[in-house]
Amino acid sequence: MRDELMSGLGEECGVFGAFDFDGEDVSSYIYYGLFALQHRGQESCGISVTRTFEKGKNVQFHKDLGLVNEVFDKKTLNSLEGNLGVGHVRYSTAGGWGRENSQPFVIHYIKGILSMAHNGNLTNASVLKEELATTGAIFQTNTDSEVIAYLIARERLHTLSIEDAVRSASEKLEGAFSLVVSSPSKLIGARDPFGFRPLCIGRKDNIFFLSSESAAFDTIGAEFIRDVEPGEIVTIMNGEIISNKMRTTKKQASCIFEYIYFARTDSFIDGHSVYKSRITAGGILAKKYPVEADLVVGVPESGLAAAVGYSQESGIPYGMAFYKNSYVGRTFIKPKQNERTSGVQVKLNVIRDVVKGKRIVMVDDSIVRGTTIRNIVKMLKEAGALEVHVRVSSPPFKFPCYYGTDVPSKENLVAVNNTLEEIRESIDAESLGYLEIDDLKDLCPGLSYCDACFSGNYKGGEPIKEEDIGCC
Amino acid sequence: MRDELMSGLGEECGVFGAFDFDGEDVSSYIYYGLFALQHRGQESCGISVTRTFEKGKNVQFHKDLGLVNEVFDKKTLNSLEGNLGVGHVRYSTAGGWGRENSQPFVIHYIKGILSMAHNGNLTNASVLKEELATTGAIFQTNTDSEVIAYLIARERLHTLSIEDAVRSASEKLEGAFSLVVSSPSKLIGARDPFGFRPLCIGRKDNIFFLSSESAAFDTIGAEFIRDVEPGEIVTIMNGEIISNKMRTTKKQASCIFEYIYFARTDSFIDGHSVYKSRITAGGILAKKYPVEADLVVGVPESGLAAAVGYSQESGIPYGMAFYKNSYVGRTFIKPKQNERTSGVQVKLNVIRDVVKGKRIVMVDDSIVRGTTIRNIVKMLKEAGALEVHVRVSSPPFKFPCYYGTDVPSKENLVAVNNTLEEIRESIDAESLGYLEIDDLKDLCPGLSYCDACFSGNYKGGEPIKEEDIGCC
Amino acid sequence: MRDELMSGLGEECGVFGAFDFDGEDVSSYIYYGLFALQHRGQESCGISVTRTFEKGKNVQFHKDLGLVNEVFDKKTLNSLEGNLGVGHVRYSTAGGWGRENSQPFVIHYIKGILSMAHNGNLTNASVLKEELATTGAIFQTNTDSEVIAYLIARERLHTLSIEDAVRSASEKLEGAFSLVVSSPSKLIGARDPFGFRPLCIGRKDNIFFLSSESAAFDTIGAEFIRDVEPGEIVTIMNGEIISNKMRTTKKQASCIFEYIYFARTDSFIDGHSVYKSRITAGGILAKKYPVEADLVVGVPESGLAAAVGYSQESGIPYGMAFYKNSYVGRTFIKPKQNERTSGVQVKLNVIRDVVKGKRIVMVDDSIVRGTTIRNIVKMLKEAGALEVHVRVSSPPFKFPCYYGTDVPSKENLVAVNNTLEEIRESIDAESLGYLEIDDLKDLCPGLSYCDACFSGNYKGGEPIKEEDIGCC
Amino acid sequence: MRDELMSGLGEECGVFGAFDFDGEDVSSYIYYGLFALQHRGQESCGISVTRTFEKGKNVQFHKDLGLVNEVFDKKTLNSLEGNLGVGHVRYSTAGGWGRENSQPFVIHYIKGILSMAHNGNLTNASVLKEELATTGAIFQTNTDSEVIAYLIARERLHTLSIEDAVRSASEKLEGAFSLVVSSPSKLIGARDPFGFRPLCIGRKDNIFFLSSESAAFDTIGAEFIRDVEPGEIVTIMNGEIISNKMRTTKKQASCIFEYIYFARTDSFIDGHSVYKSRITAGGILAKKYPVEADLVVGVPESGLAAAVGYSQESGIPYGMAFYKNSYVGRTFIKPKQNERTSGVQVKLNVIRDVVKGKRIVMVDDSIVRGTTIRNIVKMLKEAGALEVHVRVSSPPFKFPCYYGTDVPSKENLVAVNNTLEEIRESIDAESLGYLEIDDLKDLCPGLSYCDACFSGNYKGGEPIKEEDIGCC
Repeated sequence: MRDELMSGLGEECGVFGAFDFDGEDVSSYIYYGLFALQHRGQESCGISVTRTFEKGKNVQFHKDLGLVNEVFDKKTLNSLEGNLGVGHVRYSTAGGWGRENSQPFVIHYIKGILSMAHNGNLTNASVLKEELATTGAIFQTNTDSEVIAYLIARERLHTLSIEDAVRSASEKLEGAFSLVVSSPSKLIGARDPFGFRPLCIGRKDNIFFLSSESAAFDTIGAEFIRDVEPGEIVTIMNGEIISNKMRTTKKQASCIFEYIYFARTDSFIDGHSVYKSRITAGGILAKKYPVEADLVVGVPESGLAAAVGYSQESGIPYGMAFYKNSYVGRTFIKPKQNERTSGVQVKLNVIRDVVKGKRIVMVDDSIVRGTTIRNIVKMLKEAGALEVHVRVSSPPFKFPCYYGTDVPSKENLVAVNNTLEEIRESIDAESLGYLEIDDLKDLCPGLSYCDACFSGNYKGGEPIKEEDIGCC
Repeated sequence: MRDELMSGLGEECGVFGAFDFDGEDVSSYIYYGLFALQHRGQESCGISVTRTFEKGKNVQFHKDLGLVNEVFDKKTLNSLEGNLGVGHVRYSTAGGWGRENSQPFVIHYIKGILSMAHNGNLTNASVLKEELATTGAIFQTNTDSEVIAYLIARERLHTLSIEDAVRSASEKLEGAFSLVVSSPSKLIGARDPFGFRPLCIGRKDNIFFLSSESAAFDTIGAEFIRDVEPGEIVTIMNGEIISNKMRTTKKQASCIFEYIYFARTDSFIDGHSVYKSRITAGGILAKKYPVEADLVVGVPESGLAAAVGYSQESGIPYGMAFYKNSYVGRTFIKPKQNERTSGVQVKLNVIRDVVKGKRIVMVDDSIVRGTTIRNIVKMLKEAGALEVHVRVSSPPFKFPCYYGTDVPSKENLVAVNNTLEEIRESIDAESLGYLEIDDLKDLCPGLSYCDACFSGNYKGGEPIKEEDIGCC
Repeated sequence: MRDELMSGLGEECGVFGAFDFDGEDVSSYIYYGLFALQHRGQESCGISVTRTFEKGKNVQFHKDLGLVNEVFDKKTLNSLEGNLGVGHVRYSTAGGWGRENSQPFVIHYIKGILSMAHNGNLTNASVLKEELATTGAIFQTNTDSEVIAYLIARERLHTLSIEDAVRSASEKLEGAFSLVVSSPSKLIGARDPFGFRPLCIGRKDNIFFLSSESAAFDTIGAEFIRDVEPGEIVTIMNGEIISNKMRTTKKQASCIFEYIYFARTDSFIDGHSVYKSRITAGGILAKKYPVEADLVVGVPESGLAAAVGYSQESGIPYGMAFYKNSYVGRTFIKPKQNERTSGVQVKLNVIRDVVKGKRIVMVDDSIVRGTTIRNIVKMLKEAGALEVHVRVSSPPFKFPCYYGTDVPSKENLVAVNNTLEEIRESIDAESLGYLEIDDLKDLCPGLSYCDACFSGNYKGGEPIKEEDIGCC
Repeated sequence: MRDELMSGLGEECGVFGAFDFDGEDVSSYIYYGLFALQHRGQESCGISVTRTFEKGKNVQFHKDLGLVNEVFDKKTLNSLEGNLGVGHVRYSTAGGWGRENSQPFVIHYIKGILSMAHNGNLTNASVLKEELATTGAIFQTNTDSEVIAYLIARERLHTLSIEDAVRSASEKLEGAFSLVVSSPSKLIGARDPFGFRPLCIGRKDNIFFLSSESAAFDTIGAEFIRDVEPGEIVTIMNGEIISNKMRTTKKQASCIFEYIYFARTDSFIDGHSVYKSRITAGGILAKKYPVEADLVVGVPESGLAAAVGYSQESGIPYGMAFYKNSYVGRTFIKPKQNERTSGVQVKLNVIRDVVKGKRIVMVDDSIVRGTTIRNIVKMLKEAGALEVHVRVSSPPFKFPCYYGTDVPSKENLVAVNNTLEEIRESIDAESLGYLEIDDLKDLCPGLSYCDACFSGNYKGGEPIKEEDIGCC
C-alpha cells in the first residue's frame, strides 16, 4: 500500500526532459510530465529551461520543497521560457539540506551552464567525493548528483563534446543512475550499465522527451519511442537521437520492485507492462496459495492489479473492499500514537457491505514493518469479515536496497527476524502467502532483473561506505 | 466521475458536530470528521468549539478558504479548546464573498453565542430574507445559513429553549436543510421534513457525534447510532439524545443522487448501503442493456461499484482500465483549452494492456455535459479498445436540483436537447444505456426518495425567486 | 515613543473614502490613502469598492489581518474595480475574532449593499446591542461598527434617503464615531457631535475624498478642502458636497492626544497644525522647566517636534541622539524578558558621540508605564550622558479613554499611583517635567478639546457597561 | 536619501559572526545582529550554526529571500542549535539566482564543513573562476563568495590550518572582501589589504562577535573591542583572538562612502565616528556654501546628521521638514510612472508649517540620478518654501565603484554629463553646493580612504572583466 501516512517504503525520484526543435516553450510539458511522475517523489521538485540558439541567454530555473502543484503557479511556470529543459521530483529526505538537495542541479562550468536531474543511488559516491575533495572540490549539497556533475565538468576538460563527458563520467560511477542533462543545445539521457532505474524516450511532432516512466508520455499526448538501454547515452540534438554506449557493460538488472510497486500501473518498462506483471503475480499467488473464499480484494492502489490477477486465476469474485480518502496532503496532521484514530483508518475505510460475513483474500504488494497490514486486517474483521487470507505479490523483504530505494533498516523489516508463521500470527490473518524469489522470473518473462532486496544478491556491488546508502 | 478538473456536478456541503460529556477537547475529532467528509466540499472549511460548564468562556473558531488539511495546522487546531463543537466543509462558490460565506456561522444573539453549520438549499430564502430586511436585518454573507440563524435568534425571543427555537425556525423554512447547531450546553441536529440531505448520529464512549455521512464515524472509531429522521430535531445534552418533531410533516424524499454519486461508497444513509445501491444499479444495467463484451470497467471513483455490479450480473470479467493521479490539488494549473493535454488525460490514464483488443463495457455514474465521457471513450479507443459500450448508473440528467446540488443550467445538460442516439454518437460509443427513472426504486428498496433532477418532480416545491437557486 | 515592541498606547483606527465622478477606479487611491494612515492601525485593513451607475453590479471587497502592503498585492488591488469606495486600517485587538472584526463592514440590507468604515468608540454600544438583540438581531463581530450598521439599516426603513438614515442612526449613538459610508451612489461622512475623532474632506479634479487625516491627501496629490464638522453629515453625490447636521449638538471636544501623539506631524486637524502644537508644547516645557544643558534630543518619532520646540525656546542646541531601526515588522521576534537585549535596544540605539559628556534634555510625548523611558534614560547614561532631564509634552496619564484610544488600565499607569518625584526616581532622570493640564489650551489656541485621559473630565459621558470600553 | 522605492544607490551586504565559549546557542544573537545590519542588504539573509566540541554534529542553516524578520520565525530560529555561527544580509541582485546567491555559503570540503559570509566585490573573480573551471570546478551561484570558498578549500589541501588556508586564499584575491568564516571549532574574520569594507570585533562575557558595523554590538549589549585591520586575519578559538597578517600589504583605503551614506550613524569604523564625519561634512558645506536662509533641513535618514552640522556651523536653525512613512515593505505596490502619486510622495511628506514662507537649506548625502531630489525640492516649494538651497554632503558621483557598491552605470549618473549649473537648474534649486573631493580628508582626520566613485582613483585596481563588476 502506497502511503505517506504509514510506515512503509520510501519512494525514489523521477526525471523528465523535453526539447522542442520548433522552438516553443517546454515548461508546461515538463510540468505535466512531472505531475505524472509525482508518485516517485513528493518532497521537492524543480524545472530548468534554456532557449537554444540564443547565445548568452541564461538558464531559467525554479525548484522548491513541495508537490508539483504547490511549487509552480502560473506566473512562475510562464516565466520559465525556453525550448529545452529538464525536471525532477524528489523523494523525502531528512535534515535541513532539503531545499539545497532539490533538483535539477544547475551549474556553471568550463563550457557554460548545464542542468541535470538524477534518479538512483551511487555505491561509490563517497570515494568519488573524497577523490574530488582531495583536489579541492567543495560540495554544497548532500546528493550523489553533485558528484556526477563534478565528474562531468572534469571530463569535459579533455573530451570533445558534452555527451562524451557524460559517457566518461558515467564509466566512473558505480551503482544506479538514470540521468537527464541539458546543455545549451543538447538533451542527453544516460542509464547505468545495469539499467537499475528506468528511462525512456518519447516524441510528439518535433518535440522529444525523456522520462522515468512511459505513462508521462500519455499524459502529454506524446508517443513512446523506446527505452534508453542500460549503459546507453542518448543525445538528442538537431532533431535526431544519437546513441552511444559506455565501455563498462554489465548484464541488465532492471529493478523488479518497479514492477511490483514503484511504477505506475499504466507504465511500460524495458518492454514489459507493469500492469501485466502484477496480474501475473496475482495469478501465481492464486496457484500457489489457493484457498476457499468468497471475495478477492486488493489494498489500494498498488495491490489492486495483483488482486485482479488472483481473482482471474482462482475464479473467486473480485471486490472493492476499501474507500480511500485521497485528500491527504503534505500538511495533513497525522494522528498521534495514542489518538483515537490511526493513520490507516483516516486514509482507508472498509466498505462493510462488501466484506460482512465473507471469507476474504486480501492482496497487497509487500509487507515492510507489518504494522499497516495488521491494521487493515483488523479493520476487515471489525467490519464482519469471517476470514482474511493475506497474499503478498512480492517475496519477503529481507535486505536493504543500495540502488535507489529507501527501505527501512533490517531491524525494522518484519521478515528478517520472524518466520512466516510468526508474521501470520502477528497480523492475525487466517493464512499468509508470499511470492517466492524464484517466481519473480515469471513476472516479466525474459527480463534480466535485480531482486537484491529479497535475495541479497547485489549485482551492482555493495556500497563502499555507509554514507553511500541513500537515494536519488 | 468525480472531478474538479472537468465540467461536472457541483458537490454540496458536509456538516459535523461533537460533544464530549467527559469534558475533553473535540477539535481533533471534528478535524478528522471533516476530513472524512472532504468529498462533499473543497472550497472552505471551519471548526467552532466551546467549553461547556464554563460560563462566559467564549467560543473559539477558525475557518478559511481551502481543504481541511490546508486550513488547519497543529497550532490552530490545538488552540481550539472546547468539548462541544461543530464543523463544516463547503463546496466552491462564485464571487468575492468566498471567505465570508465559509462556515460554521458563529453569532452573538439574545442568549449568548451559537455556532451553526448547514447543508442544503432553501427554496424560500429570498422571501425570508426580504421579510427580515423589512424589519431592519442586515446580511453579511450570501448564504441561506445566515437567514436560518436570524430565524432561530428571532424565535428564541419567545421560545423556552434553543431547541424549540430551532424547531420553530425550521417550520418556516422550505427546501433542504440539515443543520448542526451548538449552543453553550447543547448540540442540536435538525433535518428538513423531506429529509433531502442526510444527517446521522454516532457515539464513542461519552462522546456524541452528528455527521452528514456515517463513514466519518468509522474514521474516528465511533459507532453509528441512527439517522436523524426527516423533520426531526435531536438535542444532545446531559449525555442523552432527546428527540422532537417539527409540526410540518412531509413524505420522506431522500436525495437518490447521494446514493448514485455524492456520498462515499462506505456510507449508510437512511438505512441503505450506498455500496449496495451502486452494485444494484450496475446489475440493472446489465440486465437491461446486455452486450457481448470482454471486460467491464468503471470510471474512478464513483463509477467503480456499479461496474462491479454489472460484472457480477453479466458474468463479464471486471477490470481496472484506468490509472488515476490523485495529486491534483487546489492550485493545480489546469491545461488551457488549446493545450497539448486535456484535464481528463492529466488525471486519468488508460492502462493499455487492460483494454487493447478488447470489447469494453464502461460504467459511469452520470453524464452531465458529455465532454468528459467523450474524452474517456476516445482514450480507451486510442489505447486499442475495439468497442466501448457506455452504461450510466443514473437516468439522464434533465432538470436542475433545487435542494442542494449544483447542477449546470439546462442548456449545458446534454440530455436535455439530445436524443439517446445523438448522445451515443457524440461520445462515439458503440452503445449507450442509462438507468430508467423507474429503476431508481430498486436501488434502495422501500426508500422514499427525490428524483427531481431526472424527473422534474419537485416534491419540496420550486424556488420562489431565482436567487433561491444555490446550495449550502 | 510610538512603538509596537514596547508597552505603550494602543493606537486607533483610520478611515478613508474616495468617489471619482469621472468613473475611474479608486482602489489605488484608497490603497495609498490607507498607507498614509497606517500609523493609526496595524492589525488589519480592507478596501471595498462599487461601480456607480451600473445597477446590480456587486460590491467588491478585500480585507484581512496585516499591514496595507501585506494584505494587498497588485492582483488583488486591480481586481477591486469601482469608482466609489471606502477603506479602513484597524488597531490590534485581542481574541480570535480578529479577522471577523476587520473592516470595511459590507452589508446587504433593505436597500441593497452598503460599506462602512468606523473610527471611534461608542459608550452606549452594549445598550443598543441589547435593544437590537431583543428584537432578534444577530451579531457576527465584536465591533461597535456592526451596531451602527444595524441602526442605519433600521432607520432606512422609514427615512427617505441613506443620508437621513445615517443621521437618525447617529443621533442614537453616544461616544466617539467618525464614519465613512458608501451606498450604491453616494459617499457619506459623519462625525459625532463632539468631534472626538478627526475626519476631513479632500479633492483632486473630479475625485472627492474623505480621510481621518489631511496628510493622506498630500500622499495622493489631492487638496485639503475642509474638516467635517462635529455633528455634521456630508453626502458626496453628483459631484457635490451636501451638508446636514445632527439634531444632537454638543460643544466640540477634539481629542487633544491626536495633536500630542496620534496624528502625523504633517496633518492638520480642525484647523490646527499638529506640528505647530508640538512645537508649542516643547516651548511651554522649556519655559516651565528650564535647565542648564548642552543638548535637546527627542525620542523618535513622536517626541522629535516637541524637542525642536524646546530647543528653539531655550536656545539649547537640538541634536539627534538616536538611530532608529525601522525594519521591525509584524513578524519580528521580540526579545524575551530575560534575554540579552531589550525591545528598546533592538529598535533604538544611542549615537554615542552625540551624547557623551553632555547634559541632555530628552523630550518624549508621554509616559505610560514608565518602562520604555527608563530604558532609554539608561541607554543615554551608558553612552556617556552626564545628566538626563526628561520633559514630557503631555500631562500625566491618569484616566482611561472611552472615546477610541486604547490606554492600559489604571493599575498600569505609572502616574496614577506615583508622585512626580517617585516617577523621576524610578526612571533615573536628573529632573522631570510634564505639561500641565492647563497648558493644553495653548497647544491649539481656540480649539475646544477633550482632555479626559489627563483630567477625568468625560464630556461625552462614561460608558454604560464595561463592554463599552474599547475602540474602533 | 536611503530608499528602495526610488532610483538610488544599491547598498551592499552585512556579515556577522558569534562564538559562545560557554556553549550556549548563538542564533538569537546573530538574529538581532543581522537585524541591526539590515540597512546593508534587504534581499536575502541567512544564519548558519554549528555546535563545537560535538564531533560529527552537522551544521544547521536557514537562508531565504526576505528581510530578517520575514525569513526567521521563532520555530526556525530555535531549530538552529549551536554555539558558533555566522550570518549574512544581502543586497538585492538581479536574475533568477536570487535564492541560490543567498548566504552564508555552507560547504563540505576536505576537512568537513565550513560556513562563510562575505561582503565586498572581487576585481579578479572572473579570472579566478576561469582558472578553477579549467581544473573542473563547477559553480552553483553567481557570487564571488563561491570563488573564495573554492580557493580556501584548495589551499586547505596544503596548509596546516583553516586560518592559514583563509590567508593563502586571501592573498590570491583582488578587490574588496570582508569575510566571516566558521569551521567546526573556529570563528575567522578576514579583511582585504586595503580594508575597503569594514569589519570589527566585539565581546560580551565569553561570547565573541564579528560584525560589519559596531552598532550591532550595541543592539545585543556587547562591547566593541577593535576593528579587524586591513590585511588581517583574526582567528577566534579557545577564548582567544589570534591575529595573522596577509603577505600582501597595501595602503589602507577605507570606503569613504560608508561614512557618508552606507553605515549607520551610530557606528564607528576604523576609529572614526560615522556621526561625527557627517556633522563635519555639514559644517564644511556651511563654510563653503553659506547662504541667507531661515531653516536647515535634512533629507531622512542619511541627510539628517549633515544638516545638523550645517545648522551648527551656520547658526541657521535646524528643522524637521519631512514626515517619513516607514511602513513600506518588500511587497509594497510602487506607484506606476504615470500614476497620481510618486514614490517619493508616498514615502516622504513635507510638513507645511515648517517650510511655508521660509528660505530652506536642504542637505542630502548624495545625488545619483537627480530624480529623487528634484521631486523633493518640488514638494518643498509646493508646500510654500520660498527658496531651496541644496547642499550635498559628498562630491559629485562620477565613477562606478568596483569594491562593493552598486552604483548605476555612468549614463545614469547626473553628474557625469551635466555641469553643476545644469544640475541645479534641473532640480530647480536656488543654489547647489557639493562637497569637494579634497574636503573628504577632513571627514575622518588621518584616515586613509578610497574615494574612487568621486575621483576615479582606483587604488585596488580595476576589474579584469566586465563580469567582475558587482557586489557581495
